Amino acid sequence: MDDLPLIEVEGFLLVSVQTDLHDELAQRLNQRICEHIARSGSRGVIIDISTVEILDTYMGRMLEIIAAASRLLGAQTMLVGMRPEVAMTLVELGMQLQGIHTALNLDRGLARMRELTAGS
Amino acid sequence: MDDLPLIEVEGFLLVSVQTDLHDELAQRLNQRICEHIARSGSRGVIIDISTVEILDTYMGRMLEIIAAASRLLGAQTMLVGMRPEVAMTLVELGMQLQGIHTALNLDRGLARMRELTAGS
Repeated sequence: MDDLPLIEVEGFLLVSVQTDLHDELAQRLNQRICEHIARSGSRGVIIDISTVEILDTYMGRMLEIIAAASRLLGAQTMLVGMRPEVAMTLVELGMQLQGIHTALNLDRGLARMRELTAGS
Repeated sequence: MDDLPLIEVEGFLLVSVQTDLHDELAQRLNQRICEHIARSGSRGVIIDISTVEILDTYMGRMLEIIAAASRLLGAQTMLVGMRPEVAMTLVELGMQLQGIHTALNLDRGLARMRELTAGS
């Protein structure tokens, strides 16, 4: 499966997830994000999941792992665009998405990320 | 094994870890950091691990212990310079490095530490 494109927006790293994040694709995404942060000095990772219709515990766990690794490299992680039904399912599954900021959409996520990283 | 040098930078305590932090060296480092904070009144400990290629659970735990002890003495702990592969490994090992701030490099760590300790 092709790697997801990583885009730079206002110095943040934007990843648009449009497919199931399973197994190797997820591991590889984590690795690429970490390497990108270390190379570019990006202070934030914004993950857009607006096209994701089903988010299971594996994928939720992968997002937590990406956020935890990014934090160790000094970057914040923001999840944007979650669908209402995905949010409800995640809560039913008991997933808290720890260490991950959330915003309704990309615009708000970018605005919040600017605040979070201001002066840092 | 020789003790790691402790350097004062802008009133913060800077430790550059360039070797495995095992057993006596780690215990001794913790002791020296605590004594230094008590003596100097330093408000922050910055630990640079940019040359560390492998960070295992023992060493991660030691960093948490140093951060916890420093916190009790009123000082924050900031870990800087972590390599991407080290970050990924730590997360895989389930290590969160709780109570430890992180920054990509020393410059950013110093800037963040200034913010964290401003007015304190």
